[in-house]
Amino acid sequence: MNCSEINSAFRRLEAGPSHFLRETPLWKLPAAALGLKGAEIWLKLEHLQVSGSFKARGMLSRLLAHPIPASGVIVASGGNAGIATAAAARALGVPCEVFVPTVSSEAKRARLRELGAQVVVTGAVYAEALQACLARQQETGALLTHAYDQSEVVAGAGTLAREIENQGGLPDSVLVSVGGGGLIAGVAAWFERRARVVALEPELAPTLYRAREAGRPVDVDVSGVAADSLGAKRIGAIAWDVTQEHVKDALLLPDAVIRAAQRWLWQELKLAVEPAAALPLAALQSGFYVPRADERVCLILCGANLDPASLA
Amino acid sequence: MNCSEINSAFRRLEAGPSHFLRETPLWKLPAAALGLKGAEIWLKLEHLQVSGSFKARGMLSRLLAHPIPASGVIVASGGNAGIATAAAARALGVPCEVFVPTVSSEAKRARLRELGAQVVVTGAVYAEALQACLARQQETGALLTHAYDQSEVVAGAGTLAREIENQGGLPDSVLVSVGGGGLIAGVAAWFERRARVVALEPELAPTLYRAREAGRPVDVDVSGVAADSLGAKRIGAIAWDVTQEHVKDALLLPDAVIRAAQRWLWQELKLAVEPAAALPLAALQSGFYVPRADERVCLILCGANLDPASLA
Repeated sequence: MNCSEINSAFRRLEAGPSHFLRETPLWKLPAAALGLKGAEIWLKLEHLQVSGSFKARGMLSRLLAHPIPASGVIVASGGNAGIATAAAARALGVPCEVFVPTVSSEAKRARLRELGAQVVVTGAVYAEALQACLARQQETGALLTHAYDQSEVVAGAGTLAREIENQGGLPDSVLVSVGGGGLIAGVAAWFERRARVVALEPELAPTLYRAREAGRPVDVDVSGVAADSLGAKRIGAIAWDVTQEHVKDALLLPDAVIRAAQRWLWQELKLAVEPAAALPLAALQSGFYVPRADERVCLILCGANLDPASLA
Repeated sequence: MNCSEINSAFRRLEAGPSHFLRETPLWKLPAAALGLKGAEIWLKLEHLQVSGSFKARGMLSRLLAHPIPASGVIVASGGNAGIATAAAARALGVPCEVFVPTVSSEAKRARLRELGAQVVVTGAVYAEALQACLARQQETGALLTHAYDQSEVVAGAGTLAREIENQGGLPDSVLVSVGGGGLIAGVAAWFERRARVVALEPELAPTLYRAREAGRPVDVDVSGVAADSLGAKRIGAIAWDVTQEHVKDALLLPDAVIRAAQRWLWQELKLAVEPAAALPLAALQSGFYVPRADERVCLILCGANLDPASLA
């Protein structure tokens, strides 16, 4: 993965369905205004992206890179990747099947149906839904999207970093939440160490951290407040390669500081985001990441698919 | 009220406590991306302002325009004006008394106390709390802030329009919610018909509309979904003068379209705003205001002091 592939994804997306993806705001605030260290905090409000998360970039990038068969698109996901795939398929006017396990919430299934997707509820856990999805894909030949480990998906996520640089210039550091690693792979491949990219994971979903301990991607147990969007069991192969090359810092954060930062974002900034999007602020507020006095720190707010009542 | 007074307020605010007010994002989207008519929709995300509404501009503007006695600042308000006054007083390190009626919610009182205000709960309705506030002001000599009908308050609100023009140039039209009229007075005084300013009120809180019918400001009954922030009983004298001079269009919107627009803003854009902030979008979605094909329409999202559970 490199910036050339990200530029290709950008051109593909630009030529795609008009007005689907949004250029989300980059909000610069003096660090002192937020009670933080550093010179400037750049909040990339990517939770305002269509489908409620950055995932729409990658999913549309994937769909535009391949001819789509009459059977359409297929994905196994009860979360943001499923919603983003369904939204992208609708924008292209192609059918979409989404496999979700029986544990998925009725609210998320309803959202997928609203977006025109065929929802198949099967299997007790995600792995079983995925197995059924793959079997069905063999049968129908539909185009499969993966939540984070396909090159077009990662390159699509990388267009977010390209957009930050176009809007605000080069930050000194970028704080990114990691689940399967699709976002950080795109971001780190774009910046290529021109900015310091910092990987942030919940202690209870440490795919990159454990991979670094083991020297290779390994399965981990995942749970905790951000598990619904950072709950991949293993860091993606693309993300592993890119982060080994470009990302020095990988930090683990306890759930309590993630929840506190999520609440603060609502209470003080009126930004309603899901827990996964609060890790960058949590790292600063808790002192896990301490910027230099003159540092311009970019925080990526990656998603807002949450029950708003959970902010109260 | 005129742009010279607004420029003075801007300079006063700039010289005030550093990093208190925020430059809020102006988000431009193609109208078609929102399923709307017109060329471009500009969303001014002023609900992200400190204190959760545009009111912080006016309250700080007022506090900086006068010497503040040792007894501090005093206001009668259970809503955004009270929160903004308390926040501005805290930023200046001066005491603040807020009078609220017994019908006010415990959540809002708690927020005021968090901001360091002395909260006085008195009177069954707002008018009684106001009376007690005025009596107390006579006794202490504290600086009184009014939610919308003081020139420094209106000029402070006008800095929002100045900021829009600095960020994005001149829009063709600006859609503004009206309660007591402090915001529209500032906005219309800034643009002076260089942009078409449209006044929007809930059918159930029609202070400007009824004043136009009567030929002068009159008391009206207020209720409905936006009454907690647009619930002034009478249009302010400053707003009456400015809108008579600069505002041609005053539209009434039913509660149902306001609620629908508020829900849409959350569901589709992940912007959590209070009902009062949804009137501009409601006017477009319901066809009460129909822009020209090439029109750049600016919607001011004015506040986000809401219970997030109400969005579910």
